[in-house]
Amino acid sequence: MFNIAVIGASGYTGAQLVNLIVGHPQMTLKHVLVSENSADAGKTMAQVHGNLAHLSQYVLTPLNSDLLAELAATMDGIFLATPHEASHDWMEALSAGKAKVFDLSGAFRLKDTEVFAKHYGFAHTSVDCLDKAVYGLAEYQADALKSANIVAVPGCYPTASLLALKPLFNAGLLDTSMRPIINAVSGVSGAGRKASLTTSFYEVSLQAYGVLGHRHTPEIEAHLGTQVIFTPHLGNFKRGILATVTVKLKAGTTQSDLDSLYESVYADQPIVRLRESFPKVDDVAHTPFCDLHWKVDAESGYAVVASAIDNVMKGAASQAMQCANLALGLSATQGLIHGYE
Amino acid sequence: MFNIAVIGASGYTGAQLVNLIVGHPQMTLKHVLVSENSADAGKTMAQVHGNLAHLSQYVLTPLNSDLLAELAATMDGIFLATPHEASHDWMEALSAGKAKVFDLSGAFRLKDTEVFAKHYGFAHTSVDCLDKAVYGLAEYQADALKSANIVAVPGCYPTASLLALKPLFNAGLLDTSMRPIINAVSGVSGAGRKASLTTSFYEVSLQAYGVLGHRHTPEIEAHLGTQVIFTPHLGNFKRGILATVTVKLKAGTTQSDLDSLYESVYADQPIVRLRESFPKVDDVAHTPFCDLHWKVDAESGYAVVASAIDNVMKGAASQAMQCANLALGLSATQGLIHGYE
Amino acid sequence: MFNIAVIGASGYTGAQLVNLIVGHPQMTLKHVLVSENSADAGKTMAQVHGNLAHLSQYVLTPLNSDLLAELAATMDGIFLATPHEASHDWMEALSAGKAKVFDLSGAFRLKDTEVFAKHYGFAHTSVDCLDKAVYGLAEYQADALKSANIVAVPGCYPTASLLALKPLFNAGLLDTSMRPIINAVSGVSGAGRKASLTTSFYEVSLQAYGVLGHRHTPEIEAHLGTQVIFTPHLGNFKRGILATVTVKLKAGTTQSDLDSLYESVYADQPIVRLRESFPKVDDVAHTPFCDLHWKVDAESGYAVVASAIDNVMKGAASQAMQCANLALGLSATQGLIHGYE
Amino acid sequence: MFNIAVIGASGYTGAQLVNLIVGHPQMTLKHVLVSENSADAGKTMAQVHGNLAHLSQYVLTPLNSDLLAELAATMDGIFLATPHEASHDWMEALSAGKAKVFDLSGAFRLKDTEVFAKHYGFAHTSVDCLDKAVYGLAEYQADALKSANIVAVPGCYPTASLLALKPLFNAGLLDTSMRPIINAVSGVSGAGRKASLTTSFYEVSLQAYGVLGHRHTPEIEAHLGTQVIFTPHLGNFKRGILATVTVKLKAGTTQSDLDSLYESVYADQPIVRLRESFPKVDDVAHTPFCDLHWKVDAESGYAVVASAIDNVMKGAASQAMQCANLALGLSATQGLIHGYE
Repeated sequence: MFNIAVIGASGYTGAQLVNLIVGHPQMTLKHVLVSENSADAGKTMAQVHGNLAHLSQYVLTPLNSDLLAELAATMDGIFLATPHEASHDWMEALSAGKAKVFDLSGAFRLKDTEVFAKHYGFAHTSVDCLDKAVYGLAEYQADALKSANIVAVPGCYPTASLLALKPLFNAGLLDTSMRPIINAVSGVSGAGRKASLTTSFYEVSLQAYGVLGHRHTPEIEAHLGTQVIFTPHLGNFKRGILATVTVKLKAGTTQSDLDSLYESVYADQPIVRLRESFPKVDDVAHTPFCDLHWKVDAESGYAVVASAIDNVMKGAASQAMQCANLALGLSATQGLIHGYE
Repeated sequence: MFNIAVIGASGYTGAQLVNLIVGHPQMTLKHVLVSENSADAGKTMAQVHGNLAHLSQYVLTPLNSDLLAELAATMDGIFLATPHEASHDWMEALSAGKAKVFDLSGAFRLKDTEVFAKHYGFAHTSVDCLDKAVYGLAEYQADALKSANIVAVPGCYPTASLLALKPLFNAGLLDTSMRPIINAVSGVSGAGRKASLTTSFYEVSLQAYGVLGHRHTPEIEAHLGTQVIFTPHLGNFKRGILATVTVKLKAGTTQSDLDSLYESVYADQPIVRLRESFPKVDDVAHTPFCDLHWKVDAESGYAVVASAIDNVMKGAASQAMQCANLALGLSATQGLIHGYE
Repeated sequence: MFNIAVIGASGYTGAQLVNLIVGHPQMTLKHVLVSENSADAGKTMAQVHGNLAHLSQYVLTPLNSDLLAELAATMDGIFLATPHEASHDWMEALSAGKAKVFDLSGAFRLKDTEVFAKHYGFAHTSVDCLDKAVYGLAEYQADALKSANIVAVPGCYPTASLLALKPLFNAGLLDTSMRPIINAVSGVSGAGRKASLTTSFYEVSLQAYGVLGHRHTPEIEAHLGTQVIFTPHLGNFKRGILATVTVKLKAGTTQSDLDSLYESVYADQPIVRLRESFPKVDDVAHTPFCDLHWKVDAESGYAVVASAIDNVMKGAASQAMQCANLALGLSATQGLIHGYE
Repeated sequence: MFNIAVIGASGYTGAQLVNLIVGHPQMTLKHVLVSENSADAGKTMAQVHGNLAHLSQYVLTPLNSDLLAELAATMDGIFLATPHEASHDWMEALSAGKAKVFDLSGAFRLKDTEVFAKHYGFAHTSVDCLDKAVYGLAEYQADALKSANIVAVPGCYPTASLLALKPLFNAGLLDTSMRPIINAVSGVSGAGRKASLTTSFYEVSLQAYGVLGHRHTPEIEAHLGTQVIFTPHLGNFKRGILATVTVKLKAGTTQSDLDSLYESVYADQPIVRLRESFPKVDDVAHTPFCDLHWKVDAESGYAVVASAIDNVMKGAASQAMQCANLALGLSATQGLIHGYE
């Protein structure tokens, strides 16, 4: 059994991680932590998260520097479901011991510190950790993850986008006269657990935001290998992302070319489900799956690929768990899919 | 044309009032105001309320004591869509002139100041105004409203509940061995326009609140004439209230007794629609109507009455407009129902 | 007062038309009709549409050929909220008299009968009517509508898309190396009032459909003047469409170019609201408005334009009313916007 | 490993059962079946249920009389997620062998065949099976379930209602001058997977139905031991039930009496979570839990108890699994709660 800690367990992603760890056959949840001045410190998981009302044995402990060192020395795995700044500041201490660290913030996803500073609003000074960090898009990084000590778990939109686009880019099928156009809609859990007029129930209604400037654009571009136009939207649902990707293909590319390509790339990836029709967000809500479907218009050369994930699961917690499974020497889907493990 | 001001126009009820006044054939909107330290002061209605994006000519003015006096002297009607304390504090000044004042807060709904203090958390010191205030349940107060200078517009839950229950109580049909049981579900607009974890999209899901202690209980009881058990719930929708009322009837009361009773009481009340089946919340959302339907189980003597309103309209703004129409000598439904006016 | 009939009043669009006509200061609703074998024949509007429970005076009459001739001879305006085939078959008779006919189906929107047959599945044989039909995108066809006898009211997606794209195309600002990419999400009312597993509550969740083959693609292309990639989605809300349009602009086009362009094109069009930020679907739900906002990335040359409408209103009924107002010699917004008329 | 079959796997409850069985550490899913003339026969679970897109190995087989006998002889457990009539007709054959049968329809829940015929519309002729059937309210029937061959899995509303009320009734705390008043709201999944105008997305909005006549009333009464007033509502959400129960207590009953009572009754029942505040529907959605909270008004003697379950889980599939676990000699929560099993 591996000993595990979750830092940031008062948020939605932290709660989902806790739930996955508690159900994992080879992990023991040893600590659930929050920042030093969190209003939730001292409460149980049951008190903070209604859906975890049976988990009254886990008390949210406020983090401090002594604890950072202790966790690094004693844990096998540490999940960071924390703000970018906190992950950035704590990574060096947390990764100094035997623990492998899985960071769900954006702090270690961009190797280019200039681009980072522009999009995250502060300078990156944890450069050694940044060098070591493996970008944990699990289906593409199995080998690197096996020896990783620091994992930057991908963002929700990048996960949905990259799983749709990487096969096309890697196979050289994209006509580069036009950037891939990614339109994505996310459920409100993506905004995190906090009071805000923007995400209050009466205010939420389908709307574009972060247009032509969202920080997930450089993340997608860095890990895809080419530039994109990415337009995120807030949707009136709780969980899930649907990314609809429109691309122009190299002349002569056919529907069956893409069929073969996706089948080949994802043949041994049980988390990616190649669907017979365009997926719904609720097909993947509360699951670790990414559902893909695509259609080619041979006449015009355009294709549309849709990619659906649960933003809290494959877009955060269950992808982090895939990474942890691999880093700890387990099967990638351990604790995630019944019957596959 | 009557000159009208709305105080508290940055909230949902204020916005609805503005929209009704702009469309009213005999009213001119002269002022839209907010509290002195509102973050919305200086913005236009268009900037604050996306659905009123065409109303850029109305600028939210911060209120002060000079303005209070000016409004009292120059307006024909003033709508107060303000916190209880603000309405309480400003009423004396606002009602000192020619203006008739329509208060949508809870400040003037309870004549008993002890009960008021217990439920609102502060002592009522505007006792003269409280004496003069008419409780504006429009279908029952047409005469009093015609000469009213201060109107306490009823709360949303009391409106739905009283329109269902008053016919039964007034006709002496309630078996008093059991209190009427009111279960009601409100849309999230009822909580107002503010950031709060409780009303954030991800948190909202059907839930009882204020159980056996909500401040609308004494309001219902005072204006019904008997005690009730009232259990409000927050529902996952934006607008509307459904109140499901269960009562025990005097022995021998039949379905046709209730049919005749409701038809007789509401014969000339176009806002109350007696339905052929149990109403949905969305039948009345964005409308001024109250929909009623009922069923009697003659064998057991129990009956269920359902009452549906839009909490922002009949539960607030459109009922205030009914009151204003009557107080200003117009037809009650002026500006509210096409074809009736 | 103009005498008006609505054919197809048992559907959602028909109900919305009835509600608009009843509130229109210069129209009298004379007939509400359904197809000869409709299950709703003989019922009142109140019985079929819960939100119109106050309209018990309007009885749904089954249509037959005698009535077609009578309506043509006696009505000033006829709204057809009927299936494509019905509109196609009835138009010749309905337009043979004094009545002006406003068809909300797709039967008369495509002048090219080959394209029509491919997308609608039957041959167009009402060619004279098709020749006469004016495409009623009201903001662009005011002159033609004034003398029109047959109006093809635009589809919901084309309305949202064209109001966003026509200024750019007409000004020659589109870089034609890439087709405009239209991603749109529609509320479920767009699917009409009928039992279907696809639109059952439990099944509805954000999903692309009609990918690279939807019949609104040729409609957009015909009335825009260039080809597009259009991907519609079904969203988990009742009313509204958000179209997010991504285009590549001619080199050197700036944000202020587009600002000036949209302001100039829509200066005198009160239905089109140029917003200061990206619009939400609920900003326009239950309203006649189209809300537009745009952003240019000068570096890459790409721009994103968002367009929001209520699919039942500006995407159907209120746009039909704009057309009728113009065709009957009234102001375009009569009966639609309080305060402008 | 126990061999298991699911009959009726094309519905929502059947799909949930399949998902639970596939994840169960001691069960093997051998057959998924549908009725002989189902349109889904021959399809895979993946094709019929988007959320089970990874389960393409399970093909829906049409049931026939030969198969009934084979299943009875070879299976350890059979789940029937079928219409009342089908369960009624097939039970004798299915229960004739070694298999234990868990019926999720209403066919075997009412011992009184007169009451049954009145509420289900057909005469009960499988009387031997009815005699043998154990009502599977798992928290109250652990002993009987251990030796049961036929289990009538309780209805969704009765489960929520009985878990709230049985402690009060059994302890003799109910003042019988008034019937318990149960107001409950169910998500739309409760209506099953079928096309219907009533459950189409645009039509769904909070509404009472089955008022003073729903078939779950006699089921609650039979298994509680006293009469109730039960008013179900359809809510605008996919999964879950919230039952709000209002009762009058024997004079002198206090909050702490109820606190002690519920804690004592459910001390060893991990599926029932006694909450510190009133539960939300989404606290239990997609979980096997029943969440309870209560409040007493000592002055009036009334109390309100709220009970939340997922109608597809504790209201159907996961309760059936609790029953199966017990009947097969396993721990009740096996395969249901991580960490407890």
